[in-house]
Amino acid sequence: MEQGDLKGSGKSRLMAQVDFFLATDALKSVVRNNVIHNGSRAENAAEHSWHLSLLAMTFAEYAPPGVNIAHVSRLLLVHDLVEVYAGDHWEPEADTAKVAQKEAAAAEALFGRLPEDQRAQMLAMWLEFEARQTWDAKFARAIDALHPMLLVWGPNGTGQTHQPLSARLMRDLKRRSLEPFPQLWALAQSMLDAAVADGTLAEH
Amino acid sequence: MEQGDLKGSGKSRLMAQVDFFLATDALKSVVRNNVIHNGSRAENAAEHSWHLSLLAMTFAEYAPPGVNIAHVSRLLLVHDLVEVYAGDHWEPEADTAKVAQKEAAAAEALFGRLPEDQRAQMLAMWLEFEARQTWDAKFARAIDALHPMLLVWGPNGTGQTHQPLSARLMRDLKRRSLEPFPQLWALAQSMLDAAVADGTLAEH
Repeated sequence: MEQGDLKGSGKSRLMAQVDFFLATDALKSVVRNNVIHNGSRAENAAEHSWHLSLLAMTFAEYAPPGVNIAHVSRLLLVHDLVEVYAGDHWEPEADTAKVAQKEAAAAEALFGRLPEDQRAQMLAMWLEFEARQTWDAKFARAIDALHPMLLVWGPNGTGQTHQPLSARLMRDLKRRSLEPFPQLWALAQSMLDAAVADGTLAEH
Repeated sequence: MEQGDLKGSGKSRLMAQVDFFLATDALKSVVRNNVIHNGSRAENAAEHSWHLSLLAMTFAEYAPPGVNIAHVSRLLLVHDLVEVYAGDHWEPEADTAKVAQKEAAAAEALFGRLPEDQRAQMLAMWLEFEARQTWDAKFARAIDALHPMLLVWGPNGTGQTHQPLSARLMRDLKRRSLEPFPQLWALAQSMLDAAVADGTLAEH
């Protein structure tokens, strides 16, 4: 099917949506640093996004009153979309300013495929997630921070990481996102403690 | 980390949620019949679930008034979870009664890992999707029916299918789910017509 096929019949709005949607398919080919739970391969950013939305539903009760889990779920479904053009980055090694610039350009290019009203909506959701200001975004960030830890160091996890890590580094990296949610922060720390205790993770 | 580690400290509800959540990771290893948009490999059921939720958001305006897109999105995030134990089935070749029995057992086993209130919620969502009675479920089914067609026969699709298919078979398979949504049914038919016209799909 050619891009223009339905445009002549007044369907250009629909075809812009199709064009955007098919561009997002590339998220299935963006490979992350962490492995899936059985350790057989790296996780991709598309299945990661699904799993985060499901985790937000499952852990909804650990969000403070007023958090809108349906909106958190939306934020998590779209938060990684810019990686279609900007790729995935491992926080400690990333040049933060450069990544931010790349992701802003990616957001413009990807969301710009949509009709204007939807472009603005998607961009607003991505910016809300990035800004960490609303409690919905804070909870979404906490779920995003906790998720790879659960896969790798949760019950029956393999402990496999893409490079040697330490419990101290993980606590430093995760504290900001997780500390506002006491049960989630306690769960994260208990997983790190257990991994140190059974020798799969160094303390320092 | 061992399953029981947090149970002694009154955290068994949390650990039941973790246990459920980690069991769902296996959806990333359930391989579907359709390829991803660039044709490089088969899609898995986890990334498919993410993409359906995103498609429901993108195509929200083609749902009738009263459809709750946030709920549609939830239905789509959980609709394939039973495949963790029951696998994926290609409708025309499946023994429907046997699949239904297998999936019901899978739902009991998987959702049964959750605390009772959440078990009931997840089961209710899965049953709502299966029953096709509510308009939220009907719209979710339509999105599920349209999605692989978009990947394969949409703009720049490869036309690759797991076995020789015909436009007539696809119309017969998709009509029930898509006809209630005129724009989606028109889009599906225009993709099939274009695939027949350019020789990538047989009419009969």
